[in-house]
Amino acid sequence: MLIGAIEAGGTKFVCAVGYQNGDIVEKITIPTREPNVTLPEADRFFSSFKISKMGIGSFGPVHVDRKSTRYGEILETPKQSWRGVNMVRHFTNSQDVPVHLDTDVNASALGEYVWGAGKGKDSCLYITVGTGIGAGFVKDGLSLNGRLHPEMGHIPVERHEEDSFEGCCPYHGNCLEGLASGTAIRERYGREGKHLSDSNEVWEMEAFYLAQAVASYLYVLCPDIVIIGGGVPKQKTLLPLVRKKAAERINGYVNPGDFKEWIVSPALNDEQGIKGAMALAIEGKR
Amino acid sequence: MLIGAIEAGGTKFVCAVGYQNGDIVEKITIPTREPNVTLPEADRFFSSFKISKMGIGSFGPVHVDRKSTRYGEILETPKQSWRGVNMVRHFTNSQDVPVHLDTDVNASALGEYVWGAGKGKDSCLYITVGTGIGAGFVKDGLSLNGRLHPEMGHIPVERHEEDSFEGCCPYHGNCLEGLASGTAIRERYGREGKHLSDSNEVWEMEAFYLAQAVASYLYVLCPDIVIIGGGVPKQKTLLPLVRKKAAERINGYVNPGDFKEWIVSPALNDEQGIKGAMALAIEGKR
Repeated sequence: MLIGAIEAGGTKFVCAVGYQNGDIVEKITIPTREPNVTLPEADRFFSSFKISKMGIGSFGPVHVDRKSTRYGEILETPKQSWRGVNMVRHFTNSQDVPVHLDTDVNASALGEYVWGAGKGKDSCLYITVGTGIGAGFVKDGLSLNGRLHPEMGHIPVERHEEDSFEGCCPYHGNCLEGLASGTAIRERYGREGKHLSDSNEVWEMEAFYLAQAVASYLYVLCPDIVIIGGGVPKQKTLLPLVRKKAAERINGYVNPGDFKEWIVSPALNDEQGIKGAMALAIEGKR
Repeated sequence: MLIGAIEAGGTKFVCAVGYQNGDIVEKITIPTREPNVTLPEADRFFSSFKISKMGIGSFGPVHVDRKSTRYGEILETPKQSWRGVNMVRHFTNSQDVPVHLDTDVNASALGEYVWGAGKGKDSCLYITVGTGIGAGFVKDGLSLNGRLHPEMGHIPVERHEEDSFEGCCPYHGNCLEGLASGTAIRERYGREGKHLSDSNEVWEMEAFYLAQAVASYLYVLCPDIVIIGGGVPKQKTLLPLVRKKAAERINGYVNPGDFKEWIVSPALNDEQGIKGAMALAIEGKR
């Protein structure tokens, strides 16, 4: 029997069907338009297959508490037409299968935990550094959520002494996303990170912020592995710098092991989100 | 049948026996000396009672991974003679009952979760601000640990602009414990916090650091309630300031509810540690 999966993002929906072992049979990408256009488009794709269950990794904020009657409902997103839309309810009705939903980052963490760099570990933290910054945490097969879901990209950080950029987060002055996201890089330097690959100081500063975040997450969550994905870390010099600065900052106070094996790139080749949604359907529990 | 419980601290061991409902029948406090003195002293206390199981909230660092053969072993503590001591093994043998151990702060969080301010909540964060700073997190009755246990007091924090104190943590420059523990207050001002109750700037700065930590914990863990205990918050003006500054800092980005009900004092009247150890014996699972 096939599994249905959706990686529901702000700009595109990736829809896939696949097997229990994580192999994808067919996959399409559709742009995120109004819900009354995009959801039926996704339904048309799934209607060609016999799926037994479905998992969704969703943009947020979204109701993730399975005990809530509002489980699956999109909350105060800037995408007005999506507010109040409930994808769990929609696909439960349209596809007539059980549907499990989690945040996009928790789904990615689960994908890497089940089939990627976190395979065999007890716990796995997945950080994505792109337009924004988010992170998902999985322990013993279950993602961490509360009544609300984590917003790990918004932790306060100590400002780099040479950083005069005011931050791009409209809510917080010195938060990680505000100072270290791809958006922050673009606004601070007037160019995308990919056009700044030769500028050492750009990546030293970026690593300064990410290492600080990694230290915070270590002290709070003790992840067995930290996976850093998203567009920004495609700069090859970044991860080694994050490892070095995280090790200096932690300073032996706790020992998570060899930093080369503890802080790593994703193994699922940009499919952690959609495969995570598949895993969510399979594991289907909290 | 009675339950045995130990709150094993660096300066004293509190030993108690009580009932499943959390009522304590008898309790003694013994100073923490060498393990070959203190452990038999604890055994003598328990040998007067018929206990069916035991819980220990322990100082650390300590092996908390129940799957490890070293579960219960004290690690690199400055208290040399305790290194390598395994209290789970000791009391399993001496009392011939199942023994469950967790960190002191996780035990306190569990005590408040089961019988105190966190009763009825899905998750509960307990922060203690005393000589050092630590925090424990319980969700759905289980504490958060990894191969290592959290060291939440050591998260990096942004320094207050008027703070020139270098910090008292020997491992980290700007960590929460280094800048906001009772030790930091004493070293920064040359006096204990209790003698500084009239100095607004002391408590403004203390609240600045604690509010920052509360924001970080919120973004990572989404606790349903935050309980702040320990000696330092006995200063009555502190908690209202922490609530105010945490609300300002979070700035509506997520809404944990009324801050007066979300950030609170412990309800167990300094018995959260020993009652948490009892709860640990009862819940006895992870």
